[in-house]
Amino acid sequence: MLLAPETIADFNQQHLDSHRRKLAYWTDEVGAAETIIEKLIAFQIAIPSWALGTGGTRFGRFGGGGEPRNLDEKIADVGLLHALNRSSGAISLHIPWDIPTDPEATRQLAAHYGLRFDAVNSNTFQDQPTGQAHSYKFGSLQHTDAAVRRQAIEHNIEVIRHGVALGSDSLTVWLSDGSCFPGQLNFRKAFDRTLDSLQQIYAALPDAWKLFVEYKAFEPNFYSMTVGDWGSSLLYATKLGPKAYTLVDLGHHLPNANIEQIVAILLHEGKLGGFHFNDSKYGDDDLTAGSIKPYQLFLIFNELVDGMDARGMDHATGLGWMIDASHNVKDPLEDLLQSVDAIQMAYAQALLVDRAALEEARETNDVVQAQELLQDAFRTDVRPLVAEANRRAGGALNPLALFRRQNVRRQLISERGLKTVATGL
Amino acid sequence: MLLAPETIADFNQQHLDSHRRKLAYWTDEVGAAETIIEKLIAFQIAIPSWALGTGGTRFGRFGGGGEPRNLDEKIADVGLLHALNRSSGAISLHIPWDIPTDPEATRQLAAHYGLRFDAVNSNTFQDQPTGQAHSYKFGSLQHTDAAVRRQAIEHNIEVIRHGVALGSDSLTVWLSDGSCFPGQLNFRKAFDRTLDSLQQIYAALPDAWKLFVEYKAFEPNFYSMTVGDWGSSLLYATKLGPKAYTLVDLGHHLPNANIEQIVAILLHEGKLGGFHFNDSKYGDDDLTAGSIKPYQLFLIFNELVDGMDARGMDHATGLGWMIDASHNVKDPLEDLLQSVDAIQMAYAQALLVDRAALEEARETNDVVQAQELLQDAFRTDVRPLVAEANRRAGGALNPLALFRRQNVRRQLISERGLKTVATGL
Amino acid sequence: MLLAPETIADFNQQHLDSHRRKLAYWTDEVGAAETIIEKLIAFQIAIPSWALGTGGTRFGRFGGGGEPRNLDEKIADVGLLHALNRSSGAISLHIPWDIPTDPEATRQLAAHYGLRFDAVNSNTFQDQPTGQAHSYKFGSLQHTDAAVRRQAIEHNIEVIRHGVALGSDSLTVWLSDGSCFPGQLNFRKAFDRTLDSLQQIYAALPDAWKLFVEYKAFEPNFYSMTVGDWGSSLLYATKLGPKAYTLVDLGHHLPNANIEQIVAILLHEGKLGGFHFNDSKYGDDDLTAGSIKPYQLFLIFNELVDGMDARGMDHATGLGWMIDASHNVKDPLEDLLQSVDAIQMAYAQALLVDRAALEEARETNDVVQAQELLQDAFRTDVRPLVAEANRRAGGALNPLALFRRQNVRRQLISERGLKTVATGL
Amino acid sequence: MLLAPETIADFNQQHLDSHRRKLAYWTDEVGAAETIIEKLIAFQIAIPSWALGTGGTRFGRFGGGGEPRNLDEKIADVGLLHALNRSSGAISLHIPWDIPTDPEATRQLAAHYGLRFDAVNSNTFQDQPTGQAHSYKFGSLQHTDAAVRRQAIEHNIEVIRHGVALGSDSLTVWLSDGSCFPGQLNFRKAFDRTLDSLQQIYAALPDAWKLFVEYKAFEPNFYSMTVGDWGSSLLYATKLGPKAYTLVDLGHHLPNANIEQIVAILLHEGKLGGFHFNDSKYGDDDLTAGSIKPYQLFLIFNELVDGMDARGMDHATGLGWMIDASHNVKDPLEDLLQSVDAIQMAYAQALLVDRAALEEARETNDVVQAQELLQDAFRTDVRPLVAEANRRAGGALNPLALFRRQNVRRQLISERGLKTVATGL
Repeated sequence: MLLAPETIADFNQQHLDSHRRKLAYWTDEVGAAETIIEKLIAFQIAIPSWALGTGGTRFGRFGGGGEPRNLDEKIADVGLLHALNRSSGAISLHIPWDIPTDPEATRQLAAHYGLRFDAVNSNTFQDQPTGQAHSYKFGSLQHTDAAVRRQAIEHNIEVIRHGVALGSDSLTVWLSDGSCFPGQLNFRKAFDRTLDSLQQIYAALPDAWKLFVEYKAFEPNFYSMTVGDWGSSLLYATKLGPKAYTLVDLGHHLPNANIEQIVAILLHEGKLGGFHFNDSKYGDDDLTAGSIKPYQLFLIFNELVDGMDARGMDHATGLGWMIDASHNVKDPLEDLLQSVDAIQMAYAQALLVDRAALEEARETNDVVQAQELLQDAFRTDVRPLVAEANRRAGGALNPLALFRRQNVRRQLISERGLKTVATGL
Repeated sequence: MLLAPETIADFNQQHLDSHRRKLAYWTDEVGAAETIIEKLIAFQIAIPSWALGTGGTRFGRFGGGGEPRNLDEKIADVGLLHALNRSSGAISLHIPWDIPTDPEATRQLAAHYGLRFDAVNSNTFQDQPTGQAHSYKFGSLQHTDAAVRRQAIEHNIEVIRHGVALGSDSLTVWLSDGSCFPGQLNFRKAFDRTLDSLQQIYAALPDAWKLFVEYKAFEPNFYSMTVGDWGSSLLYATKLGPKAYTLVDLGHHLPNANIEQIVAILLHEGKLGGFHFNDSKYGDDDLTAGSIKPYQLFLIFNELVDGMDARGMDHATGLGWMIDASHNVKDPLEDLLQSVDAIQMAYAQALLVDRAALEEARETNDVVQAQELLQDAFRTDVRPLVAEANRRAGGALNPLALFRRQNVRRQLISERGLKTVATGL
Repeated sequence: MLLAPETIADFNQQHLDSHRRKLAYWTDEVGAAETIIEKLIAFQIAIPSWALGTGGTRFGRFGGGGEPRNLDEKIADVGLLHALNRSSGAISLHIPWDIPTDPEATRQLAAHYGLRFDAVNSNTFQDQPTGQAHSYKFGSLQHTDAAVRRQAIEHNIEVIRHGVALGSDSLTVWLSDGSCFPGQLNFRKAFDRTLDSLQQIYAALPDAWKLFVEYKAFEPNFYSMTVGDWGSSLLYATKLGPKAYTLVDLGHHLPNANIEQIVAILLHEGKLGGFHFNDSKYGDDDLTAGSIKPYQLFLIFNELVDGMDARGMDHATGLGWMIDASHNVKDPLEDLLQSVDAIQMAYAQALLVDRAALEEARETNDVVQAQELLQDAFRTDVRPLVAEANRRAGGALNPLALFRRQNVRRQLISERGLKTVATGL
Repeated sequence: MLLAPETIADFNQQHLDSHRRKLAYWTDEVGAAETIIEKLIAFQIAIPSWALGTGGTRFGRFGGGGEPRNLDEKIADVGLLHALNRSSGAISLHIPWDIPTDPEATRQLAAHYGLRFDAVNSNTFQDQPTGQAHSYKFGSLQHTDAAVRRQAIEHNIEVIRHGVALGSDSLTVWLSDGSCFPGQLNFRKAFDRTLDSLQQIYAALPDAWKLFVEYKAFEPNFYSMTVGDWGSSLLYATKLGPKAYTLVDLGHHLPNANIEQIVAILLHEGKLGGFHFNDSKYGDDDLTAGSIKPYQLFLIFNELVDGMDARGMDHATGLGWMIDASHNVKDPLEDLLQSVDAIQMAYAQALLVDRAALEEARETNDVVQAQELLQDAFRTDVRPLVAEANRRAGGALNPLALFRRQNVRRQLISERGLKTVATGL
């Protein structure tokens, strides 16, 4: 379905008075409002193609209705989100779930919605029902059998080819490789085999491309993961070369990890490549960004803004930004709107931080003042800024409210049916 | 497939000399050997019907071959395990995965293998493809909609009926009920609704039956679980009445929980009902019992033996003993043999502990000596005792070795095919 | 040192215009402002006497200057905090660190500052340098030696006597009792001995008093804690009787625990007695309230408000509210001002939640809307409300800013010296 | 006190028959016994000078009696341990707690007991009561103030000088540097300042020396640690140069970390320098090695043996081996005897692993068999081997039993008094 610009304009018109009042108060009190709004407009978060349907757990999946049935409908869904918030202007594909049969047409369809193609993602953590000679039951790039490794390497190279055809410029490699039991793996050999496989993929990377090495502490392997933490990922990325980077997924850490410090160190090393946003309480829970630990999300953005500025990186394009969540009990599109909203707020709050004062407090070990400065930014209600940025870019003042008022889900169900399953879910 | 007694006898004969030498050394050094062997023979661990096929994660499932295709084949598999180790003499069914069409025939089939029916398990954590009016997407016994609760209650009562027909005498209720996001649930109302539903199930319980209330800290709900820890479970069980008990699954705790202390307290309160054995490093990893933390398994048995003796409970029948594991990367039957083996060893070691000396060390706060006493038992190689118990009961000295020598899996594949999927997997 | 009312009035006068502007915007947009301000004024958080000096770890302590040298100076410090924020109108004493030699004079001194005496705290986790016959090395109320238990029981009864003399009406018992090694404790006997000891203390409790049984997952014992979780504490409290309650300290849980759910259940059982506020990332880190997980603090208050309202409890007096933090690297008084501030905000935000709409969203399983409602409240900048409540009650619009402008710490150092150590630190 | 060789010989004589019987059975069944005994004899674990007295927590310390009062007595205590087990032939000093006034005499005293000096340890996590110009309250090598950093650097260089005088050849730098609150630190600058400081220390390192960079996840800083994980430590060590290595302390990780994999990767990178042994359940609990997770200890040794062999490293000298534990509730010397014993067993079991078979199982993804091979080794009772190694080297068959029979603690108390406090405790 399409959302006519007039629908958005009508909606905004109805809420404009209240919005202007809130915004005016804001701009009166905070000088940096205009700069922040501009940066918010430029900031785009990619939506992964697999996040448009309801996720599940090993215990079951409770699908919603009207889920996209093919790549075109996935693109349409992201287009709808982007029309609403003007901040989801990219889509990240997963191969083989989303192989475009006519890349040029797919590219044009995306362009029609104002979308570009973000990182492409390979999949060697599952066996495909057809056309796969070897099983990944015991790993892919780490596998003891060279034939399995070869198959996984070639799959990654094929993913790059698809990405090139669509105008993507990066490959994300998330490996579930690891072991479930002590003794199962020779850790050294698994490391070496994985590195060798990655090197072959790296060799196939086009010049301007980046390779993102994603790490994860546990699941689906429950004893060891071969790319298990940022230290491992950085080792691989460093040995691979300048086009290889570490990718941080917020849910991929051991309990209590200080993710913002990891982000700062990786940025400082010039090896942070991208981000998968979600939130979690126990493991890779894949909950809506900002739904569990919003202050942590802010602290991460605080490091991102600070670290990117220190290296002169452009916030919008310097790193890959993507949501990676699961929506087991929410409408996937509503969940994504909430996630983008939370990310925009965390970014706006990070931009609000008085960095000169913060550095001064740090230099004098004024811990109380340093905390006050961060919390001043975090406690500020930045919703009017985010709404204004969305509005100026052509989106809705309140994307979620408009989504609901337009009965989007009901329309999608009537178009697509109640029992649909997106590929990859 | 069946394992002829002569096959086992042949196998044992070949290893008898070596075994006798080890055992003789053992009985020379340790007086209690005979008593321990007898208790090991009496000790039986139930096999759940869903553990006979390869498990999976939300990221995929890598099936093995020759998996059972129906309830009869599941019973045959447990029968095979029991023939090998004479310690798996019970099977635990999951409804609706394993509804017997002819209960009397099913009962006879089980009896033929020397198996009895342990606790029956209800399933309200998934929607069934057919014949289910309401969805459990937002819970079952906790649901805000009385019609959903009614459906879930009736399902549990139906499970009891199936259990009665098979000669089972207990119902295990594991609820995935909970919430994924702050705000989703009114915790108080969810508690009250769940209690009310459980009370209705409890009311349908035959006189000699037990109701096991299983708790779990997280997954598949990732913010709150309505029966989330032993404290909650005990509250429910106490409010329900004398036939309700807490069931402990080793993988259902927060990181670093002291499970053996929980076991001791529940036993002391007279409210420990049963056990699900598995092992884990991160969450409900469902790994082979004893594969990650064998000392913890021993410490748990140490409390079980001590606490059951203190209450005059029979070790073999006082509590429900069951394995609950997943075998993502192992042959399920081999995994189960390893699990039973590990449980037998932990039990044997716990029986070895010099309890009089231990109590004396405790009374005098001789921490060093208390540790020495436990570790003396744990460091003792009890494999000859377990082998002897299996042998005397008619099983194999080394069940896993015989399983492999007989090429059981290859036979199962040739009988059942390479691509089979057990119901419930 | 004393803070003259005129000083506060002057300070407020200077910031009044800006404050009124913010508040006006607020009261224009939110109807409930007046009610919230009144509740904030009534809400008082007790300051523990041991939190007025710099804390330390086992690796060292880096004292600040001007710390209180005796009970009178501790009361003066709390009086100063209360003068600044009018929300710290109670002090919680720790015996034997703060034994008043002249209780009546102490009481009058406190009254002079507008302070009452909150729960008194016993200490059986340390050996005192003088006057103690038995050591608590191996526990106190759980000890195998009846003479040690008797000493600990009598100490608690003595603490009650001191509390009675000061007008306190509750006793908090935090036990470090537990074990460091497997085998050290007979869990059952430790439970029974502890219960028996608590029963003797309970028997000495005056009629209108409450006994708070505090639990803690680990530290200083590193294998088991005899009152280790809310389940244990509730068991003790229930067996003790109607005057016994569970006390929740935010830092006393295993990783990832859902504390807000625990709070809801305990309140629902009528057994939540009180709260120790602090924040933490790893264990009992005793950091400033709201400094690490402010959303969690809000979610806890959300349950507190909801649960107390459901039972018709008065927010200000229904439970015991206390800070328990350590300030290793902050000025203790500044840290306490930040903590009270954060608690007030979380309380104000919880009061803001649209409960009718929330219950409606819950009843219809509208998870997205339920989250929106909580986050609407949390994202609201309630600082003007807290400032107004402080101002109306006679305190400063910004207590921390005034504390700094008055150079309070410098004055305290000049009065008390640079190297002072508060008793109990 | 000294333990006469005849005392040991007498003791061994009394237990020789029983020991020989056990050993004979052992050597009959396992071919590798002789090799393992020889390696055990060569394997020495250093005792840190601060581990000879009772440790404590921030809540208190319950001293034992007869604790060493000075460096000479500490050396005597290690000498006693070494006489008992012939496996503690090194001592690790902590400066400034153990500054030798006459290094040559100290060296001779140690040599008299058959001890060498292992790594020397600096201390910039505490302020010393005298002679320290600047405070480490806000860090040492990371400090914003160059003068503080300079002081800390010079202290480390002084520690090297002491080490040279004693014949040590490595420096362990454990930093408590970090932050307690979000905002407190600029992570990048803290990293750079720490690196710069370490480089200055590195520059002062004698040619044959090693610098060990120890990491720790949390405590005493509770928000961030500047050398917080193996990834950070490896970054520092790599930037420093070939003489810098990572040091692993078993208690310094986040919950559920796979330490054996970390060990394998660091060894593979040629950057593992040494080990601090202890055990823990929650954090840096500093419990007796092998008392909580003995299988983990074995798995770590399994990687150590495998990884060292792969690099042709000598087990005894290739890495630094040290105990670092706290003994809050045990006699420190007994605790150390238990720790050394547990380490010896884990090492012996790791030597028992059939590595050729293990590699074959791994190559064929025979997960079940790989687990069997590891557990075969772990389940083997290696106590006769450890006893024999101790005996052949001149130690006692059962060091702890002899320690108790000789009433060593009572003698130490009578020599040194009941209330003694070792420096550094």
